[in-house]
Amino acid sequence: MTAAAGGRPAVILLSGGLDSATCLALAMADGFVPVTLSFRYGQRHDVEVEASRLLAERAGSEHIVIDLDLRTFGGSALTADIDVPKHDDVADLDGSVIPVTYVPARNTIFLAYALALAEVRGAADLFIGVNALDYSGYPDCRPEFVAAFEIMANLATRAGVEGTAPLRIHTPLIDLTKAEIITTGIELGVDYALTTSCYDPDSAGRACGRCDSCLLRAKGFREAGVTDPTRYQNEAGAT
Amino acid sequence: MTAAAGGRPAVILLSGGLDSATCLALAMADGFVPVTLSFRYGQRHDVEVEASRLLAERAGSEHIVIDLDLRTFGGSALTADIDVPKHDDVADLDGSVIPVTYVPARNTIFLAYALALAEVRGAADLFIGVNALDYSGYPDCRPEFVAAFEIMANLATRAGVEGTAPLRIHTPLIDLTKAEIITTGIELGVDYALTTSCYDPDSAGRACGRCDSCLLRAKGFREAGVTDPTRYQNEAGAT
Repeated sequence: MTAAAGGRPAVILLSGGLDSATCLALAMADGFVPVTLSFRYGQRHDVEVEASRLLAERAGSEHIVIDLDLRTFGGSALTADIDVPKHDDVADLDGSVIPVTYVPARNTIFLAYALALAEVRGAADLFIGVNALDYSGYPDCRPEFVAAFEIMANLATRAGVEGTAPLRIHTPLIDLTKAEIITTGIELGVDYALTTSCYDPDSAGRACGRCDSCLLRAKGFREAGVTDPTRYQNEAGAT
Repeated sequence: MTAAAGGRPAVILLSGGLDSATCLALAMADGFVPVTLSFRYGQRHDVEVEASRLLAERAGSEHIVIDLDLRTFGGSALTADIDVPKHDDVADLDGSVIPVTYVPARNTIFLAYALALAEVRGAADLFIGVNALDYSGYPDCRPEFVAAFEIMANLATRAGVEGTAPLRIHTPLIDLTKAEIITTGIELGVDYALTTSCYDPDSAGRACGRCDSCLLRAKGFREAGVTDPTRYQNEAGAT
């Protein structure tokens, strides 16, 4: 990585998960000065926001938390009274259907706020940690969605009218497997003990080990040959 | 107008101004069942939200108000500590520059929420009351912005993945002058006394008569040959 950005500001969406933590590290390795943005969006647990705060602090980054109330709309297992599905094995995940953990238009809303923040701060760069594993199931993680958002964003803002620096949405993880993301992050010094992936953690922030996200995380660490520092509710860990 | 929509739900962005009030009336005249959506977004006054509530109530529409805090970002005279510009005459307005009342990425954020609500409710139609007068100054009121948002929205959601009814963003006011909007609304029975346009009303909700929005509204009513029911802070009204 080179300091290609030369200290320019970039807005980084930070969820507290391992993907966005790696995304932040990649942006910084590329020379951007990060402004991290997280959301308290009526998810069942505040563990994600706390993880984001710790990650931003460790990175020495400014961190902004926005309160959204997506519970007003419902429609997702992450924000409404719908059970988070549990599985015994990662092979049980069906990438051909949209999971009930999908939050309607979530990434559109997150990127819209990131765009507003970028415009106010004069940042022309946004980072979002979507990757290949997500976009099999979530419509708003697909490369074609991000490309369409970027086109829209350039028409939505001063930059679009005034012809100044066009806004670019970076997705450095888009083609990486979970194992590749972890390997990249370890090289950059990411402390994955600070990250959280579970859709259904307990009040102590310990992972369930059986939701889609836990299974994919555990598989990634296994394949990367790295020990996952995640704390689990059961001593057995993830399957 | 025909009942072309046959009772299908549509999400209508309702600001409490005369444009969105007319937009709501047009959607209903076209047979849509409206779900109106308003935002408390750190604007200096709550007059807009109250006007929206009254308009929705009069229309017999469900009304959802979302709290956003765009003050966290600042950058606009409507949400930060920047004076709202006042003029003596509508001819003083300069359509060639973006006004300081522009709120960064506001319509992107509003439409993103509308998209989420539409997806949860199974609505394939969104209405936003942008019009020709706005898009000379605000980047996110331009037809090309709305068209790009629609393309993005269809990639962002279940509809895009599952190939069900594509989402459509309706902008029925886009080519109308303020006078034409008012004439249309009067025909449809819109009570413009319920609407508010001023960027800088007093605590009683009375208009300043001298901000861009007041001047454009007054000009519209004058050209439509209709008396504006707006209550002003000064007896002289708008110039």
